[in-house]
Amino acid sequence: MQQHELIVPVSGRGMIEITQQVRNWVASSGVSQGLLTLFVRHTSCSLIIQENADPDVRHDMELFFSTLVKDGNPAFLHRNEGDDDMSAHIRSAMLGISLNIPVSQGQPVLGTWQGIFLYEHRERQLQRHVFMHLA
Amino acid sequence: MQQHELIVPVSGRGMIEITQQVRNWVASSGVSQGLLTLFVRHTSCSLIIQENADPDVRHDMELFFSTLVKDGNPAFLHRNEGDDDMSAHIRSAMLGISLNIPVSQGQPVLGTWQGIFLYEHRERQLQRHVFMHLA
Amino acid sequence: MQQHELIVPVSGRGMIEITQQVRNWVASSGVSQGLLTLFVRHTSCSLIIQENADPDVRHDMELFFSTLVKDGNPAFLHRNEGDDDMSAHIRSAMLGISLNIPVSQGQPVLGTWQGIFLYEHRERQLQRHVFMHLA
Repeated sequence: MQQHELIVPVSGRGMIEITQQVRNWVASSGVSQGLLTLFVRHTSCSLIIQENADPDVRHDMELFFSTLVKDGNPAFLHRNEGDDDMSAHIRSAMLGISLNIPVSQGQPVLGTWQGIFLYEHRERQLQRHVFMHLA
Repeated sequence: MQQHELIVPVSGRGMIEITQQVRNWVASSGVSQGLLTLFVRHTSCSLIIQENADPDVRHDMELFFSTLVKDGNPAFLHRNEGDDDMSAHIRSAMLGISLNIPVSQGQPVLGTWQGIFLYEHRERQLQRHVFMHLA
Repeated sequence: MQQHELIVPVSGRGMIEITQQVRNWVASSGVSQGLLTLFVRHTSCSLIIQENADPDVRHDMELFFSTLVKDGNPAFLHRNEGDDDMSAHIRSAMLGISLNIPVSQGQPVLGTWQGIFLYEHRERQLQRHVFMHLA
């Protein structure tokens, strides 16, 4: 059983691919078969698996979610940290904050087009903590 | 490997924090490092992690999801149990019914503002069964 | 620790129940207590748990999600594979691609009404790969 915390610096809203950092840690663990869990310790960003070949997918994802969950909704009560505060919490709940990926032959069993992304929902610079667990 | 079922009584739609019950069970297990899985055995409520400091977040979450997934949609066919029946199934699918949280130093690795919630989507009194697994 | 890949043929958009195949594999494993993880190796379908008694639920789910995530949105950039391409990626991110179900007494601890579904979001014939991990 191995655990490690990955720090991901972000500079505002958007999807940041972390597949390579995760693959490197799994490879360094020496574990050939197991279950990898990623858990982000925040309530205003997400961890998702998504198409990583075409960067247009990231553009369209953001277009969709920023339309679905409007920033600055005047009906929201929780607005202390700005227009992107409550919308970030809602996106985080919808898209989730953890991933579970089986590991086989020393590698996460990601499909050909699957990349691992931290999806930042806040409009600011932050350090995000991704806890990795492999057993 | 330890398993336990937590019964959560609910009195209608809304987010009920269960962080303390979960923490207590993990502490009583004596496990210092592992993976905690929570799984709710129903299709009309959810388990989510969300901001637990400001109760306004719960208000805004409900405002958002009750607007996004309208109760009593006349186009729905599955309406036998009332206006909140099918909308509860949709919310459950969107928000998910299980959580995976690594455990380190005898504690779930929740961030400072992360609480564990059962989000009830039905408008009635119920007993919800949350299965906990730790290994 | 056991792993197996289940191939699920699909013939277009919709929810396909795979509960029995999953139950059969768990039973054949001989594992009486553990954690079952299902992970689909694609970015345009989902794995969800949903009501499996009334087929109307599947109809209403599709009605809701096809309205929420419109096919052929002209604002999307990623359109190379047709009108259902980007919408399928968004649905996949919203509904998730993995499930974790504790196993107790040799059975997944599914509630009475819970079925396991592969929810296909593309409008075509495909072979979907569901990786199963049990430990």
